[in-house]
Amino acid sequence: MTFLNDNFMLHTAAAQRLYHEFAAPMPIVDYHNHLPPQQIAEDHNFENLTQVWLYGDHYKWRAMRTQGIPEDYCTGAASDWEKFEKWAETAPYTLRNPLYHWSHLELRRYFGITELLSPKTARAIYEQTSEMLRRPEYSVRNLLRKMNVRLLCTTDDPTDSLEWHRKIAADPEAGIVVLPAFRPDKAMAVENPETFNAWTDQLAAAAGTGIVQYEDFLAALKNRHDFFAQHGSCLSDHGLEQVYVADYTEQEIKNAFRKIRSGEHLNAIETLKIKSALLHEFALWDHEKGWVQQFHLGALRNNNTRAMRRSGPDTGWDSIGDFQQAQPLARFLDRLDADNRLAKTILYNVNPTDNELMATMIGNFNDGSTPGKIQFGSAWWFLDQKDGMERQINALSNMGMLSRFVGMLTDSRSFLSYPRHEYFRRTLCNLFGTEIENGELPAEETDWIGEVVRDISYRNAVRYFGFDKNLTTI
Amino acid sequence: MTFLNDNFMLHTAAAQRLYHEFAAPMPIVDYHNHLPPQQIAEDHNFENLTQVWLYGDHYKWRAMRTQGIPEDYCTGAASDWEKFEKWAETAPYTLRNPLYHWSHLELRRYFGITELLSPKTARAIYEQTSEMLRRPEYSVRNLLRKMNVRLLCTTDDPTDSLEWHRKIAADPEAGIVVLPAFRPDKAMAVENPETFNAWTDQLAAAAGTGIVQYEDFLAALKNRHDFFAQHGSCLSDHGLEQVYVADYTEQEIKNAFRKIRSGEHLNAIETLKIKSALLHEFALWDHEKGWVQQFHLGALRNNNTRAMRRSGPDTGWDSIGDFQQAQPLARFLDRLDADNRLAKTILYNVNPTDNELMATMIGNFNDGSTPGKIQFGSAWWFLDQKDGMERQINALSNMGMLSRFVGMLTDSRSFLSYPRHEYFRRTLCNLFGTEIENGELPAEETDWIGEVVRDISYRNAVRYFGFDKNLTTI
Amino acid sequence: MTFLNDNFMLHTAAAQRLYHEFAAPMPIVDYHNHLPPQQIAEDHNFENLTQVWLYGDHYKWRAMRTQGIPEDYCTGAASDWEKFEKWAETAPYTLRNPLYHWSHLELRRYFGITELLSPKTARAIYEQTSEMLRRPEYSVRNLLRKMNVRLLCTTDDPTDSLEWHRKIAADPEAGIVVLPAFRPDKAMAVENPETFNAWTDQLAAAAGTGIVQYEDFLAALKNRHDFFAQHGSCLSDHGLEQVYVADYTEQEIKNAFRKIRSGEHLNAIETLKIKSALLHEFALWDHEKGWVQQFHLGALRNNNTRAMRRSGPDTGWDSIGDFQQAQPLARFLDRLDADNRLAKTILYNVNPTDNELMATMIGNFNDGSTPGKIQFGSAWWFLDQKDGMERQINALSNMGMLSRFVGMLTDSRSFLSYPRHEYFRRTLCNLFGTEIENGELPAEETDWIGEVVRDISYRNAVRYFGFDKNLTTI
Repeated sequence: MTFLNDNFMLHTAAAQRLYHEFAAPMPIVDYHNHLPPQQIAEDHNFENLTQVWLYGDHYKWRAMRTQGIPEDYCTGAASDWEKFEKWAETAPYTLRNPLYHWSHLELRRYFGITELLSPKTARAIYEQTSEMLRRPEYSVRNLLRKMNVRLLCTTDDPTDSLEWHRKIAADPEAGIVVLPAFRPDKAMAVENPETFNAWTDQLAAAAGTGIVQYEDFLAALKNRHDFFAQHGSCLSDHGLEQVYVADYTEQEIKNAFRKIRSGEHLNAIETLKIKSALLHEFALWDHEKGWVQQFHLGALRNNNTRAMRRSGPDTGWDSIGDFQQAQPLARFLDRLDADNRLAKTILYNVNPTDNELMATMIGNFNDGSTPGKIQFGSAWWFLDQKDGMERQINALSNMGMLSRFVGMLTDSRSFLSYPRHEYFRRTLCNLFGTEIENGELPAEETDWIGEVVRDISYRNAVRYFGFDKNLTTI
Repeated sequence: MTFLNDNFMLHTAAAQRLYHEFAAPMPIVDYHNHLPPQQIAEDHNFENLTQVWLYGDHYKWRAMRTQGIPEDYCTGAASDWEKFEKWAETAPYTLRNPLYHWSHLELRRYFGITELLSPKTARAIYEQTSEMLRRPEYSVRNLLRKMNVRLLCTTDDPTDSLEWHRKIAADPEAGIVVLPAFRPDKAMAVENPETFNAWTDQLAAAAGTGIVQYEDFLAALKNRHDFFAQHGSCLSDHGLEQVYVADYTEQEIKNAFRKIRSGEHLNAIETLKIKSALLHEFALWDHEKGWVQQFHLGALRNNNTRAMRRSGPDTGWDSIGDFQQAQPLARFLDRLDADNRLAKTILYNVNPTDNELMATMIGNFNDGSTPGKIQFGSAWWFLDQKDGMERQINALSNMGMLSRFVGMLTDSRSFLSYPRHEYFRRTLCNLFGTEIENGELPAEETDWIGEVVRDISYRNAVRYFGFDKNLTTI
Repeated sequence: MTFLNDNFMLHTAAAQRLYHEFAAPMPIVDYHNHLPPQQIAEDHNFENLTQVWLYGDHYKWRAMRTQGIPEDYCTGAASDWEKFEKWAETAPYTLRNPLYHWSHLELRRYFGITELLSPKTARAIYEQTSEMLRRPEYSVRNLLRKMNVRLLCTTDDPTDSLEWHRKIAADPEAGIVVLPAFRPDKAMAVENPETFNAWTDQLAAAAGTGIVQYEDFLAALKNRHDFFAQHGSCLSDHGLEQVYVADYTEQEIKNAFRKIRSGEHLNAIETLKIKSALLHEFALWDHEKGWVQQFHLGALRNNNTRAMRRSGPDTGWDSIGDFQQAQPLARFLDRLDADNRLAKTILYNVNPTDNELMATMIGNFNDGSTPGKIQFGSAWWFLDQKDGMERQINALSNMGMLSRFVGMLTDSRSFLSYPRHEYFRRTLCNLFGTEIENGELPAEETDWIGEVVRDISYRNAVRYFGFDKNLTTI
């Protein structure tokens, strides 16, 4: 079979039918990513492929570093072309890595380029794509439209003014719904009193209040949560090694807050307690408003001190941890569920060894109140490739109900990452198709399976997050 | 291929031959399940499919809750038909979950129904099966006979009078050997002095003795262990997060027992010590009598307080834990092995991440005294599906000797679960067949592989548990 | 397909081409094993197949014990023929275990025997192979030459005189480069002061110095490290449950060393600190000399006290542990990297659950200074079979760069283990070939993929370890 042809990753006739007839036509709602709303508001045009492809892509940087390419060409001062050239030199070595599929899919889907990226083709590809990217048809909104993206949720700090989200919402031309999501990681980053207090002052300013006591802090955060809701947000997100679920008293939290606010360091127990208190509060607010809460669990971040000093966080020095997840997670969710105040929840694990743990954990709190109330989230970060997706889908199938899955998101910083939805849908259809073909699913039910494919591709997410209200006009 | 046809899950000619010629004709010994012996003794007839299919099936309840169906239709007060109707509504959504295969296999194998369960077919299927279930040919013994079940072991509390086991044994018509298994979980449930003491009083009554001191407690338990042995029991079972293996002195245990017997709570260390002492004693008795001991490890149970309050344990609120298993398990087994007092042992893990750990752990204590002395048990609970079975079989193959495996058990509460043995045998034959077909096993050895398939399907278990003495008359 | 034929494990035409054209012709550099250099220096001939196949092979012993064969025939006093007979009885039961493939491959590749080993063929195979083994063409050097082995690295204690390595190096007939590797496990075995001090005295003698203080100890070890380097060593190795990475002060280490040197036991904290200090020092020396450091992580060793007393370590009573790896490993590597003193490093995990953790950990310290600086090592020990290799290769592919992988090693004590390189290469080519055939890799890039196969089979290791200088004359 030809590489990346129409039936790429679709190894049976049933898979091909499921994909082309049911999955492919569905629009995209990308309910979790890290796109900059400003670029959407301004309908930005990139100058060249390096800007949209290599600025901010830690996957590619890691590959380049493994290839033996100096940092200058990754996060450093080399020119855009030089960086691209080094990436083109690396690309042929990425075979069997998702980058190999993603990159070539992206060249095809956005630019119609079917050549493979290599030192030989680098210059021509760079020039052709850069020329295209400067045209109006390749503005970021048009890149999204080309992929049939109808709605997306960014990831935002509670102090964010949501200025750009408001501009997009007010723009009758936008055509794409862009919602904020509440990510209060910095509100729990109490390890460093200095940065915490600076952030808390920003929060105070954003909420238009002063913050002296813990009550003030909570009130300001709640104010922002309300503000996000007013601007269409319906989900929160937390990036954690493990959930925080220590026992605590109100007084302990008040004291801890006073301590850190006066610039003192908390000890390990106080730290855990205040994080536990905050995480519990956020969860209550999410439940009150009918939001969905997301937990991204298990990454071991910022492992390289030398690189951290030079380039800061999120530049590709993170990895998969082996934290214990089951007990704290069960306790955390149960504490909320006990009073029936557990919001709809999505659990994402970055260590695939936790797949089965997660796929069964959700069943502990699916209480019949809403279909698929607790979700085992799509394969995330390092797992965001064919194997990872298949393992997540299979664990969910075996131990839960795949049919109620809300499906894929990009989690990306790049406007060119949308073929990952296609990649996911192909993988999904291939799994179904294989079983139809070999008699493990009934072939006469293919139309029904097609409906399930449509659900997982689009409709489940729309219903689950309540996007019906946002998408009525489309 | 047609869904669920004769060659279901048998994807090569070699697999088909292995299954039909060698595996399928073998009878079933189901050495671990949770069937109620009373119903066998009374040769019970169910009134309808809900009673035999939905009462007590936490797999189906979890699926229904995920589907958004209220608890009333799961463990609650809805009528049998209403419950069935909701399950039929859920069934089409379970595709790729083992329930989809199991349910349709069960409809075929017991009732000859080849239609798929759905809201459209629900009424007819309910009526037809219920009518059949009320006939003598569908009594529970006949359900077992239909599946060629020759012997089964239930799971019983030490206080059990074994009244029903004795009745079955005395019944010349029974035709099926039903043996008890010793499961003393409640003897180790010292966390709650109230329930522990109530249970201990029951134990005293069953043993016909008084229990004041630890020695009395042990003697009463030993008395019951002997009693179980007299009634044909040859295996014990323990459901644990991790094995208990703290160091302790006799005095410490005596003191702890006195303390709990006087209604006081033990602290964490005392709790672990007394559990460790008891588990060690049970293991010594198992060795003395030549029994097999089973350890079911790693489940995180009763995670949902709200549901626990309403419906009690074993109603589908458990999940897979991530406990550390290797060191305590090695120490526990070694402590027994050091004096050559380690009984035949089966280790079951519920977290598939421990498969390889378990598959290699058994090799530490296979001492050449008996073939396959320490066993890595069949895929259990959440893992009891094609993927889970394949992973267990593959880990055992790669790191141990599949040929000495004692094979499948249902672990079920339902008389309709016996097609799981068929499911296991098909999976096993398919793995062998694939490798014969692709040259990774020698095709000219297919007859030998067939003998190995027979061993794993039936003969290994018969020899390992010593069921030859029970089955001579059959 | 015929068992073990030319296209064994090569299930597509693309895989067959990759293997036969690119992989098979490459020589072998076996950069990590446990072969005895004396036998190479003396160009030893074995008397029979038992000596070369069963002496020291814990894989076979474990299989035999599982088969129910008494220890006498494994590590005990039975005759060579009796041992072989029992192994032949076991062999047919090992189907699906790597032993089944390995053993039959070895009979073919070294002796041209295509019959399967069984009680029926045992005598003839034993006699034929033993007769051959006594001929000059079956001396150990000729066994290595037959497999096209150009260079190998043994594993050596720092006190080793390297007498046999020197003899081989001085022998113009040798034709095979045999380098030592520095494995200072005994320098960190401080748990037992008696054996530690005896070893330390040996070290003192080897270094020609006295050892009173910690400084002396370090100096003596450094002296040996230098000595190993002078004799061509370019890698170290450590077998650990987890890396040691406690904080410590120089004074603490000095005190701990004095304490143990005076025969006292260290407490747990002192033990961890001194191990952490030593491991850090070794790592610094490796960096200074441009060596590669290897960490073999996660085995739970010597679990059977009864067997340990009788047969000592490394006789098949070890298994896979479930230690936490991520945080200590990240800290250990970062501490070295912070001053840019992290040597080239290979991480091997024995628990496959850590595959993804390891595959992403390496990315944290690949800094662009050299291609594939930090390596996720080949599937090791219990994982050294098709499934294990595929999972390691896939994890590395998905989360790192397979193309920069240094590939396979035998890790074996036997001169007959070299077909494992073939086994690895077939597995590798089969993975690539499958994806070429199904369109997930571009078929028109098969020549390029062939080059990558050559790299992984041989050239990456030569470059990475700097073996170019050793192999120039070949």
